[in-house]
Amino acid sequence: MIEQLRKILGDPDRVIAGEDIEAKYLTDTLGRLKASADALVFALNTGEVSRVMRYAWENGIPVTPRGAGTNLVGSTVPLRGGIILDLSRMNHILEVDEETFTAVVEPGVVLQDFQAHVEAMGLMYPPDPGEKTATIGGNIATNAGGMRAVKYGVTRDFVRGLEAVLADGSVITSGSKNVKDASGLQLRQLFIGSEGTLGVITKCILRLVPKPETTLSVLVPFDSLESAIRSVHAIIKANANPTAIEFIERSVVELGERFTGVTFPCPDAKAYILLTFDGDQPQVHANAERIRAVAESCGAADYIPFTDPHEAAEIWKVRGCLVKAVEAVSEQEPVDLVVPINQTARYIEYVHQVEQETGMRMIAFGHAGDGNVHLCIIRGGRTDGQWKTELHEVMQRLYQKAYELGGLTSGEHGVGIAKQPYFFANTDGQLLSVMRAVKTALDPKRVLNDHISYLK
Amino acid sequence: MIEQLRKILGDPDRVIAGEDIEAKYLTDTLGRLKASADALVFALNTGEVSRVMRYAWENGIPVTPRGAGTNLVGSTVPLRGGIILDLSRMNHILEVDEETFTAVVEPGVVLQDFQAHVEAMGLMYPPDPGEKTATIGGNIATNAGGMRAVKYGVTRDFVRGLEAVLADGSVITSGSKNVKDASGLQLRQLFIGSEGTLGVITKCILRLVPKPETTLSVLVPFDSLESAIRSVHAIIKANANPTAIEFIERSVVELGERFTGVTFPCPDAKAYILLTFDGDQPQVHANAERIRAVAESCGAADYIPFTDPHEAAEIWKVRGCLVKAVEAVSEQEPVDLVVPINQTARYIEYVHQVEQETGMRMIAFGHAGDGNVHLCIIRGGRTDGQWKTELHEVMQRLYQKAYELGGLTSGEHGVGIAKQPYFFANTDGQLLSVMRAVKTALDPKRVLNDHISYLK
Repeated sequence: MIEQLRKILGDPDRVIAGEDIEAKYLTDTLGRLKASADALVFALNTGEVSRVMRYAWENGIPVTPRGAGTNLVGSTVPLRGGIILDLSRMNHILEVDEETFTAVVEPGVVLQDFQAHVEAMGLMYPPDPGEKTATIGGNIATNAGGMRAVKYGVTRDFVRGLEAVLADGSVITSGSKNVKDASGLQLRQLFIGSEGTLGVITKCILRLVPKPETTLSVLVPFDSLESAIRSVHAIIKANANPTAIEFIERSVVELGERFTGVTFPCPDAKAYILLTFDGDQPQVHANAERIRAVAESCGAADYIPFTDPHEAAEIWKVRGCLVKAVEAVSEQEPVDLVVPINQTARYIEYVHQVEQETGMRMIAFGHAGDGNVHLCIIRGGRTDGQWKTELHEVMQRLYQKAYELGGLTSGEHGVGIAKQPYFFANTDGQLLSVMRAVKTALDPKRVLNDHISYLK
Repeated sequence: MIEQLRKILGDPDRVIAGEDIEAKYLTDTLGRLKASADALVFALNTGEVSRVMRYAWENGIPVTPRGAGTNLVGSTVPLRGGIILDLSRMNHILEVDEETFTAVVEPGVVLQDFQAHVEAMGLMYPPDPGEKTATIGGNIATNAGGMRAVKYGVTRDFVRGLEAVLADGSVITSGSKNVKDASGLQLRQLFIGSEGTLGVITKCILRLVPKPETTLSVLVPFDSLESAIRSVHAIIKANANPTAIEFIERSVVELGERFTGVTFPCPDAKAYILLTFDGDQPQVHANAERIRAVAESCGAADYIPFTDPHEAAEIWKVRGCLVKAVEAVSEQEPVDLVVPINQTARYIEYVHQVEQETGMRMIAFGHAGDGNVHLCIIRGGRTDGQWKTELHEVMQRLYQKAYELGGLTSGEHGVGIAKQPYFFANTDGQLLSVMRAVKTALDPKRVLNDHISYLK
C-alpha cells in the first residue's frame, strides 16, 4: 500500500508508513481514544485526493480524512485502520472576492488565519467556534457554531459552495458564488455537518460580510442562574440584535479566574450573562442601552459595559479558557448538547441534580442565545474502570433528559465516536435508516469514516 | 384506483376521479403546460398522506404533490398522470412558541396568512417571496427567496425541522425547535428546495424573529442602469443592513405605472434602486442616512425616503405588480436566473443585446442585493410555432451567458419542467449523477414528481 500511495503522489515524503505515524494522527484532540493506521498521506491538491480515494475505493481500504485534528468526539480516530488522509497542507486562501463578498479557500486553511486575513481587508467571516486553530474543512464537516451564532448563524450559513471528492474518487462542485440557489438538489447542504462520511471537502466557497466598525461587550451579573437564563428570552425579544449571548455560573468563572489570573467583577453573583454587540458606534450603543433596561427589569444585579477593548478581551479570555481550565485540573468529557432556548435553565437544574445524586462534578456554560449547553464532566480521582462506568451512566441520563426536553445530541461538535451510543438511543430508527440510505448511495463500500458508525 | 383511494381516506368526497378534476389542478399558475391524472386526493393529515403514498408505492403509481399551485416552472403539472396529492387543506398553524421563537405549521398554510398571524403576536416570519398566496410547503419545496433575502436570507434559513412522508409511505422528522444541530446527517437540508422529488412535507418547524418596530423604504433614481447596479456593492459595503435592495429600469416602471395608476417620482431616471430598512426608528434612520451619502457618491440623481407608509406601499405596489402588468399585455415566460452580484449589470447589458439582436422584448427587474434577475420574456404577437422556437433560442442564450458569468438556472422558482433543458445543458454530469443517486436512495421506484426529470 505504501508503495502504491507513493507512486500515486509521486513524492515519497508525503506518505508515512504505519509504524512511523506520529501518535497525534491516531487520535483526536482529547487523546482518549487511540487507533492505528497503515498509512498517513499528506495531500496537496484535489487531484491527489481524488487519486488516493480511487485507490482506496478500488481496494476497499478505509479512509479517515483530517484537518487540524481538533475535534472532540473522536471523528478523526482511524478505528478501522487504512489510510489517514491529511488535508492540512491544502491551506491556501485561493481568492477573496471583495465584489461578491466571497472567498475561495482550501480545506486546510486554519480558521484564525482566515479570519485575520479577511479582517485586514475590511471584511469578516462570522463563524467563530471556540477552537480557532481548527481548519475550515473541519468546521464545515461539523457545521461548527460558536459565539456569534446568535446574530450571524453557524458555518452552514456561510458556505456558498463546496468541491468534494467522493468515496470513488469522483469530484463534484455543488454551489457557487451566487447568493440564491434553487437549481437542483443542494448536495452541499448534505455534506455540511456530515463529519467526513460522504466526501472529502477539497475547496470551500465562503460568504463574507463587511467588518463591523466596532464591538462592545457587556457583563450582566444575576443572583441566580435561573434568572440569568430567563433574561435571555427578554434580551432576544428586545430586538437589540446581540452578536453573542453566553451564560456562565459563578463557580465556573472561579475556575477561569484561577487559570487566567483575570478577576471578574461582581464576585457575589451566582451567574453571569455575557453579551457582545457589533455594528457602528451609535447603533451598538443604542442596542446595549436597550439591554440595560431589559436586564434591570429581569432583576440583574448590575450592568457592566466594557468600553475598553483590552478589558473586554480579558473577560472573554475567562470564557474562552474554560475547557482548558478544567483540563488543567482533571481529565474531562466534553458535552455540547442542545435544548430549545426556553429549556436551558431547567436543563442546568437537572445537571445540578445529577451532580448531587452521583457525585460527578460537571462544569456548565455555553451559548445561552441558542440553547447550546457545554458541559465538562470531570473525572477527578476515578480509576479507569470507575470512570468508564460512571461516565456512561451520567451521559445516558444527560442525553435522555435533553431529548425529553426536545433537545439533541450535539449543537456543534458532531456525533463522532464518543456520542454514538446516546445519539442511537434517542434517535428514531426510521430517520437513521434514511441517513444510512443516503450514505449507501454515496459510499456503498463505506470507505469514508466508517468508524462513525451511525451510518452503518 | 378511485375505489381504493376512497377506502384509504374513508371519505369519498376527498377523492376526485380523473374526468372530474378541475383544469387548475392539471397545470401550474401559468397554464402553459397541461396534463391529465387519474385521481385528485385532498389529504387532511400525515397518516392519510402516508397511506396514499404507500398505496402509490406498492402499485408504482406516479404522485404529484401540490399546495396552492402557484409555481411558475411546471413543477405541479402531472405529466405522468397518476395521483395528484393536494395538501392545501392541511392548513393549520399548529403552534406559535413565543418562548423559542418558533412555529409549527402544516404545509398547506398560506404564506400571507402565516405572516399576518405571527405579526399580530409581535413576531415576524422573514421569507417574503412575491407570491403571498403560495403555501409554506411550496415555499420550502422551492427554497423560496424574495425581497427580504438581503438581510434575512431565504426560506432555508427559517426551516428548523421538517416532517416528511417518503415515497414508500414512511414518515421521518428531521430537525426540531433547537437552534443548532450537528446530530447526524441533516436530511431536512436536502428536502428544502428539492421540488417535491424526495418526500411530501407534512409538518414544518419554522424560525421566527421579533417583529421590527418600523420599516422605511427609499427610492434612489440613477441616470443609467449600470450606475444603479454598481451602487449596490457600495450599499452592501456600507454596513447599513438593508432588508431589500431591488432594481427596476425606468421602462419597466412605466409598465407598472400604467397597471397600477401609481406615479413614480423622477420620471427622467433610467433606473431605480428601491431599498427597505427595518429595525427601531433611530437605527433605521441612521442606516438610511448612511445610504444617502453612499448614493450621492455613486452619482444618484436623487434620494427619496418614504416616511409615509401609504406612499411606500404605493411604490412597492409598482414593484410587486410587474409580472401581472406584463401578463396584462402579453403571454410571458418568467426567468429567475441568478448571477454573482458583481455580474448583474453586465448581465442586463447582455439581455438588452439579445433583445436588439432577436427582437424579443424582455422586461428585467429583480433582487439587486443577491443577483437574482427576474426576466419576463414577452410573446407579443408570435404564433405558437414562432414562440416555441424563438423562446427556446433566446432561453439557450440567456442561460448560457448566466453560467459563463458564474450564475445558475434558478434563484427561487426551481427547475421544474420549464427550465430543465437549460439546467441540463449547463450542469456538470457528475453532479447530476450524484443528485440521481440520492433520488434513487430515497425513491427508487420514482413515484414522486417523476416529471421533474433531471433526477431520472
